[in-house]
Amino acid sequence: MRPFKKLISFDEAQRIAFSAARGIDRVEIVDVQNASMRVLSSEIKATMDVPPFDRAAMDGFAVLASDTFGAGLFDFKVVKIIGSIHAGEVSDIEISSGHCVEIATGAKIPKGADAVVIVEETERENEDVKIFKPVYPQANVSIKGSDISKGKNVLQEGESLNPSKIGVLTSLGLESVEVYQKPKVAIIPTGNEVAEIGKELKEGQVYNSNSYALACIAFENGGIPVRMDIVEDTRSALESVIKKALSNDFVVLSGGSSVGERDVLVDVVESLGKVLFHGVQVKPGKPLLLGEVEGKPVLGTPGYPTACLIDGYVFMAPIVRQLARLPKIERQKVSAKLSRRVVSTLGRQQFLTVKLKDNEAIPVFKESGAITSMAEADGYIEIPSNVDLVEKGDTVEVLLF
Amino acid sequence: MRPFKKLISFDEAQRIAFSAARGIDRVEIVDVQNASMRVLSSEIKATMDVPPFDRAAMDGFAVLASDTFGAGLFDFKVVKIIGSIHAGEVSDIEISSGHCVEIATGAKIPKGADAVVIVEETERENEDVKIFKPVYPQANVSIKGSDISKGKNVLQEGESLNPSKIGVLTSLGLESVEVYQKPKVAIIPTGNEVAEIGKELKEGQVYNSNSYALACIAFENGGIPVRMDIVEDTRSALESVIKKALSNDFVVLSGGSSVGERDVLVDVVESLGKVLFHGVQVKPGKPLLLGEVEGKPVLGTPGYPTACLIDGYVFMAPIVRQLARLPKIERQKVSAKLSRRVVSTLGRQQFLTVKLKDNEAIPVFKESGAITSMAEADGYIEIPSNVDLVEKGDTVEVLLF
Repeated sequence: MRPFKKLISFDEAQRIAFSAARGIDRVEIVDVQNASMRVLSSEIKATMDVPPFDRAAMDGFAVLASDTFGAGLFDFKVVKIIGSIHAGEVSDIEISSGHCVEIATGAKIPKGADAVVIVEETERENEDVKIFKPVYPQANVSIKGSDISKGKNVLQEGESLNPSKIGVLTSLGLESVEVYQKPKVAIIPTGNEVAEIGKELKEGQVYNSNSYALACIAFENGGIPVRMDIVEDTRSALESVIKKALSNDFVVLSGGSSVGERDVLVDVVESLGKVLFHGVQVKPGKPLLLGEVEGKPVLGTPGYPTACLIDGYVFMAPIVRQLARLPKIERQKVSAKLSRRVVSTLGRQQFLTVKLKDNEAIPVFKESGAITSMAEADGYIEIPSNVDLVEKGDTVEVLLF
Repeated sequence: MRPFKKLISFDEAQRIAFSAARGIDRVEIVDVQNASMRVLSSEIKATMDVPPFDRAAMDGFAVLASDTFGAGLFDFKVVKIIGSIHAGEVSDIEISSGHCVEIATGAKIPKGADAVVIVEETERENEDVKIFKPVYPQANVSIKGSDISKGKNVLQEGESLNPSKIGVLTSLGLESVEVYQKPKVAIIPTGNEVAEIGKELKEGQVYNSNSYALACIAFENGGIPVRMDIVEDTRSALESVIKKALSNDFVVLSGGSSVGERDVLVDVVESLGKVLFHGVQVKPGKPLLLGEVEGKPVLGTPGYPTACLIDGYVFMAPIVRQLARLPKIERQKVSAKLSRRVVSTLGRQQFLTVKLKDNEAIPVFKESGAITSMAEADGYIEIPSNVDLVEKGDTVEVLLF
């Protein structure tokens, strides 16, 4: 057994992790209806004007603006209604001075007309309409191409799609769109003490829960989790499973939890590629390994659930997002009063899981081995490595899960 | 054409919308690996202890704590190593005073031992180990059931699942879990001016983009979007499509955009069920209709993209979440300086879409009819109905999309 030696700082580890992950270059075509949160692999050039024609922006009367000049509440102007146009209707009516058509929002403005007087500012009397307020040319008219003009790059490479950007694509009539493929994240549970869920536990065994929790993190951050079978903590088993897992974009191992087993993984990664760091000044989550094999990041997380999940949130998730080309996650922060004194470890940045209640942050961390340290938490507070005590009642910033 | 009459306030409309939506009662069983963001329909009672046995929390030596009492750096205690236990191994070694076993994190504590001395505080010499620091009983031992004790309710009905809660389920060996079904959200595009994407536009037509944007909002908020065919704005067509759509949990219509067409929808909803409100003091998004037919909410959004999407974000999304029993969304807020003076409309709460750049909030709202008013925005600011002017340089709170 070799204990840990030199650890690197959290910031340095994050910097290395970010630079080890490059965005996936492979692209694919997806239906717009499945494009939520996907990332555009090329710019979208508008192939048409939106709106495709001058249209009424309000319900009212399409007029010549000049016919309304000088109109007032006690000095209205009168024009004659010579027809009506509903949205979607094609009309060959032409408007000349003294005339108008009743027009619905969204309908094409007829020839001759250059403005719409909204219905609220008129009063109809049989075929005549009284106008109480003047309009300027183009008033209440959406001009062809004013929203999106043909030929313009409306969306850029690298933008991730949300409801309104999908609205842009479909307003151009696009049924499908080219996006970057999602990164495939291999998740490998290791350790002789780990048993697959659904099977009966033997003495000394625990269930493989980390794989599922990490798979969920990968999924929620734009990756495709690929859960692999449990492997033994032997050099040959690890070597062969990592080689196999390299058909994916990112390899994440959970456990082996002992220093001895970690050493095996370090040796394997060193022999297949290179170790970027091993051991980070964080608590929990210290025994973290990051390597690179065949240009792909390989992350070895500790087997203990809370340590594994914290490393999943603060290291794995950002790497997956970077591979997926999604923007960095900005965790929502809320301020709260710490419910009791917390003693931290100098020299390690502590992620203390807390529950929020009545504006109090209540620590729920039990130990790195306890899954409930995470499941009961609404978020965590970061205690920097140079702080060893936070007092009860101190205001802390809680980063929400 | 009938112009709008009495509008209700934004707050009142939201209150009515929330009380019109009740959580779905139907349940289903899903694999834990697909349970991200799903909502538990019953409590989870632990069927076993986690950990299932007393285990080493650290690498080191399993000892009798009393053998270490009085140990110091210059006054170490020595015990004899009589074996080693790896994680997952079953050992029948029994420890008596003066003896210990080498033990790995996660391994079962052997009979007789009651504490673990961590490897860092020892020095091995052949079969002897020097202990430099005393430990108390249970030191570095995770006691059976200390994380989750058998019989305890570990997760409650109504909790939505995240990576660590999925970790809890799988640590209990569960392969599947009972959750509430996702609400099915029927999305109906209406209007004669709307054409399906993929088809050629006729004169006076625009593409059906709202359906896709609304479907994306439904999906991102835990619903199953069910896009239906475009229907005409006639009484009979609307009546028949709404009846058909009632096999879903929530019916959302987009357009018809004109006052006349809205009246048709109001009449139809009134004849099939009841209208809860029609017309809200918001901008954009005023012509919003909420009704209830056969106990199901029916939302009529305006056809104009920005108006439709704002109503989608502030009314439809919360209704979907409520049906899905997901917690209310708390939009992330950032402060920024407004880049130019904004004139608002008294009596209407304005949602002004803005882009963020260098700590400035730059208004990107063009008009309700412009989809780019939304797609270029990072978020929106809310200008209350009693404010008519916000000055350039004023600090505003931007709610991020």
